[in-house]
Amino acid sequence: MRALQLRNRQVCLAEVPTPEPPPGEALVRVRLAGICHTDLELARGYMGFAGTLGHEFVGEVAALPAAARPSAGLAVGQRVVGEINASCQQCAACRAGLGRHCPRRTVLGILARDGAFADYLTLPLGNLWPVPPEIPDAAAVFVEPLAAALEILEQVAVRPTERVVVLGDGKLGQLVARVLHLVGAEVLVVGRHPAKLALLEAAGIAARLDPPAERADIVVECTGRAAGLAQAMRLVRPRGTLVLKSTVAVDPQAGAAPLDLAPLVVDEITVVGSRCGPFGPALRLLAEHRLDVTPLISAEYRLVEGVAAFAHAGQRGTLKVLLRP
Amino acid sequence: MRALQLRNRQVCLAEVPTPEPPPGEALVRVRLAGICHTDLELARGYMGFAGTLGHEFVGEVAALPAAARPSAGLAVGQRVVGEINASCQQCAACRAGLGRHCPRRTVLGILARDGAFADYLTLPLGNLWPVPPEIPDAAAVFVEPLAAALEILEQVAVRPTERVVVLGDGKLGQLVARVLHLVGAEVLVVGRHPAKLALLEAAGIAARLDPPAERADIVVECTGRAAGLAQAMRLVRPRGTLVLKSTVAVDPQAGAAPLDLAPLVVDEITVVGSRCGPFGPALRLLAEHRLDVTPLISAEYRLVEGVAAFAHAGQRGTLKVLLRP
Repeated sequence: MRALQLRNRQVCLAEVPTPEPPPGEALVRVRLAGICHTDLELARGYMGFAGTLGHEFVGEVAALPAAARPSAGLAVGQRVVGEINASCQQCAACRAGLGRHCPRRTVLGILARDGAFADYLTLPLGNLWPVPPEIPDAAAVFVEPLAAALEILEQVAVRPTERVVVLGDGKLGQLVARVLHLVGAEVLVVGRHPAKLALLEAAGIAARLDPPAERADIVVECTGRAAGLAQAMRLVRPRGTLVLKSTVAVDPQAGAAPLDLAPLVVDEITVVGSRCGPFGPALRLLAEHRLDVTPLISAEYRLVEGVAAFAHAGQRGTLKVLLRP
Repeated sequence: MRALQLRNRQVCLAEVPTPEPPPGEALVRVRLAGICHTDLELARGYMGFAGTLGHEFVGEVAALPAAARPSAGLAVGQRVVGEINASCQQCAACRAGLGRHCPRRTVLGILARDGAFADYLTLPLGNLWPVPPEIPDAAAVFVEPLAAALEILEQVAVRPTERVVVLGDGKLGQLVARVLHLVGAEVLVVGRHPAKLALLEAAGIAARLDPPAERADIVVECTGRAAGLAQAMRLVRPRGTLVLKSTVAVDPQAGAAPLDLAPLVVDEITVVGSRCGPFGPALRLLAEHRLDVTPLISAEYRLVEGVAAFAHAGQRGTLKVLLRP
């Protein structure tokens, strides 16, 4: 099969064997996949990953283990999306319901597991979620990042009385703003791209180039830049909450000035690191058409054009670039 | 009167006029004061403070405004301790009950307000708390840092099922460990001074030189060193809580490698900055003899020996150094 792989920090198209699902895993034929900011970071060396990239996808079940129970709602041909953390199901974290934090986990296209930019992938049965027919592929491919945006609501009580600033108008900031707008908070996105800000305004969300004068109750850092974190600390009020969504907010290689965290203590800020989120509500909200994610699609490429798709995804002003095998 | 002042980053004894209390403030004669790690940091340039140092004290009311209501429990001669943040009582933060975060506040011996290492100080009436007779001066002088330790419990629900690591066996770490031990959590202090660790063990609190192999639910950073924060991030479990008590955890002048905060996101850690705390419970717990703070006293000096006292307080292995006018 074809696979877009990362080899020696180079993204390249490769012909590789179709994977044999290990016990307990299904073979999934990829229908559509999305390029995430993390994929671009991986290509720059983040996590030291090598192998097939990609963790945002919608596919269909191509083969199930003989022992799979039909009650799981999975059958060959069923459209599915998949949680990306494959946990051991045995350690203390897994027993505590924190499988996404299993220390022995592999992560689709990120950590010791080949990803979704390929004709096929494998994932444990427990990671797969059937996609209801109300959700087209072009929306289902956003379930993983939408779940990551919803994770904020799992961690922080965001009240309708609160003012929220989302820093960053990129792919993640767009989803985060839509989710926080959905739950009734007063959301303002501060970004750098007029076209992306216009997309937010079209969704009824306030968006601007300049940070507000008044400090916010909650600031969500979605810029992926080290400067974003310092700006977030200036924008959040005393006793407020700062949510870090960018895994690469501080680059230890960058040689930038060390970050002064004393304001966190003086202003008693709570900083919440936030990563992957719950697929169930993401699927439900998309099925109910509670938010529209398809305006975030900038382009769609064939998998064989994957190298060009990566170059496009890295260009300033681009939102979601999709890959179709 | 005599005052221990910070002038051009030099600590020196000065003869200054006895302060005239502004409207709404009381004149307080200082009975005993304590040197805090923050005082040592101020002397190194933190906050750019100049003036009379000192924010931990017990004193007695020397003069009250003519309009003071007797109902406040304050009378000339009454022993008092004082909250250090003098707020404007008018801005949005003050109206929201966040006077300790008033952007126009002055702070005793720290920000635009002369402190307690002097014969007299002034503070707003609302900042003063009567000290019950059950609490001797040598314990009452710990109310301010004990309140800062209690602030953790105002911000984070610390459950008896949770394992807490306190990083740092200094003055603040000692108080934090005692408070968290009091509420039933499983507390381990990791420190660098066998004598200080022995003090903790004498109070029934586990203490050791080496960090534990198992990651903790909650880690409280009390070392005052940049390396402490990086260590705290390694010691807290995924989805755990890291409490920052040291205002100087990261020194922007130090030229150290930038801190990599990506683990906060990957492990979804919550970081809680924590500063000043509630005086009411600190006084009550001391009055009920629920914890013993006097073993933390390393030495007592006369105010006129203040420069020598500061040198002593800065020596490795020293805990609380007191100053008596």
